[in-house]
Amino acid sequence: MSLKLIFYRKYFQNVKILNKSFLSTSSILNAKVAVVLSGCGCNDGSEIHEASACLVHLSRGKADVAVFAPDIDQYHVIDHVKGMPMEGEKRNVLKESARIARGQIQPITSLRSSIFDAVIFPGGFGAAKNLSSFAFDGPKFTVDKEVERVLKDFHSSKKPIGLCCIAPILAAKVLKGCEVTLGFDKQDDQWPHSGACAVVRDLGSKHVDCSVVEAYVDRKNLLVTTPAFMGTAYLHEVFDGIGKMIQKVLQLADKK
Amino acid sequence: MSLKLIFYRKYFQNVKILNKSFLSTSSILNAKVAVVLSGCGCNDGSEIHEASACLVHLSRGKADVAVFAPDIDQYHVIDHVKGMPMEGEKRNVLKESARIARGQIQPITSLRSSIFDAVIFPGGFGAAKNLSSFAFDGPKFTVDKEVERVLKDFHSSKKPIGLCCIAPILAAKVLKGCEVTLGFDKQDDQWPHSGACAVVRDLGSKHVDCSVVEAYVDRKNLLVTTPAFMGTAYLHEVFDGIGKMIQKVLQLADKK
Repeated sequence: MSLKLIFYRKYFQNVKILNKSFLSTSSILNAKVAVVLSGCGCNDGSEIHEASACLVHLSRGKADVAVFAPDIDQYHVIDHVKGMPMEGEKRNVLKESARIARGQIQPITSLRSSIFDAVIFPGGFGAAKNLSSFAFDGPKFTVDKEVERVLKDFHSSKKPIGLCCIAPILAAKVLKGCEVTLGFDKQDDQWPHSGACAVVRDLGSKHVDCSVVEAYVDRKNLLVTTPAFMGTAYLHEVFDGIGKMIQKVLQLADKK
Repeated sequence: MSLKLIFYRKYFQNVKILNKSFLSTSSILNAKVAVVLSGCGCNDGSEIHEASACLVHLSRGKADVAVFAPDIDQYHVIDHVKGMPMEGEKRNVLKESARIARGQIQPITSLRSSIFDAVIFPGGFGAAKNLSSFAFDGPKFTVDKEVERVLKDFHSSKKPIGLCCIAPILAAKVLKGCEVTLGFDKQDDQWPHSGACAVVRDLGSKHVDCSVVEAYVDRKNLLVTTPAFMGTAYLHEVFDGIGKMIQKVLQLADKK
């Protein structure tokens, strides 16, 4: 073994041990919550700050968290400096999501509502590119089969589902008739993506206006949604809105 | 233009506008703070949650933030599921860091203390692999020339520097005689990387014990450090410790 590797192992080999603890509390009394990621980066995966905010608030709420993602190729890889696809580059959604999960991740095919009290879907273009085709197909988009299965599984088991940013469009499609927010339904500088609100209605669901620092609860369907980066906002406002979403999901999970 | 692209542009082309605002307040009265990233992922770049926590707390502190990174290849690319290098894979530190910065990033070569009030270095293996060779060379490690220049520039200009996790080792080397924390200097399950504390002393600097929810201030050198993921900790504790670091950096910047 080289001296370099010996040094590396001496100081850093215990990373796996560390990572096991960062997400999970040990008490069986706490809510068990699944988080579904879609890659790592706002333009082709999970929005990093939204995903991190979900995990911070779940940690503060003493939830026992497990992270999942589809083991599929990303739709494409975006150079986040240029905002353009990187030709010939391929990345795997599970592997890239593992960057956010610090290696503690499982394929979405193994996610069942029977062992969790709630599920969370952070936003980012990954929800509209890897978990569904919304970014490209608009109102006629399709949802990844495993994502559809998970949403229906938690919904029919009456376990709460939290979604933020563009991810609520997944629920609007799969759980037709539900109520979600994507921010405010008015096209201006603050809400440049508000055209997506009309799609929610086209899908047979209801759009409800909600500010970035709040979260909207559909009590009938046990859905909690918050706009996050659907609008222009400071990062701490997005963080606080996601905090409201997580608190309300944990409250709904607690009532069961 | 294809229908798919028309839809995509209709709903999502304004991402660049959104991103401009998420980091920056417009008031000239607020502190201008530079954040230096080292990639995107705990095992080969910036620790994502540490970087996000820095940006959330800076946002709450009304700082005007700009993000920088070296425009160099990563030392290697780690598959974060397996924890092993991906053979033949190459990634650029600036491009990957842009995932955290939502595209709002500049090369570190353009970072000067003259237009900023403080600089922050989040941790993650990127600090020990891309910003320096500490992960592989141990006590005999070298620091990237631009990183060394930035640290000396802010230090000699008497502008505060915040560092967390393993990043304080950069200051311990470049600003010999300074005081930093890497957590607690005792090898146990909670502090498995504490061997690095001895390296701080070998470099001629001083290691000071500090818990994950606190930050240590070296008032002479205007350095603020917090252990973050150097120890086993829940994510919200890491978030809170970084909050203390950012608050103290902003207080030091305010006194000028």
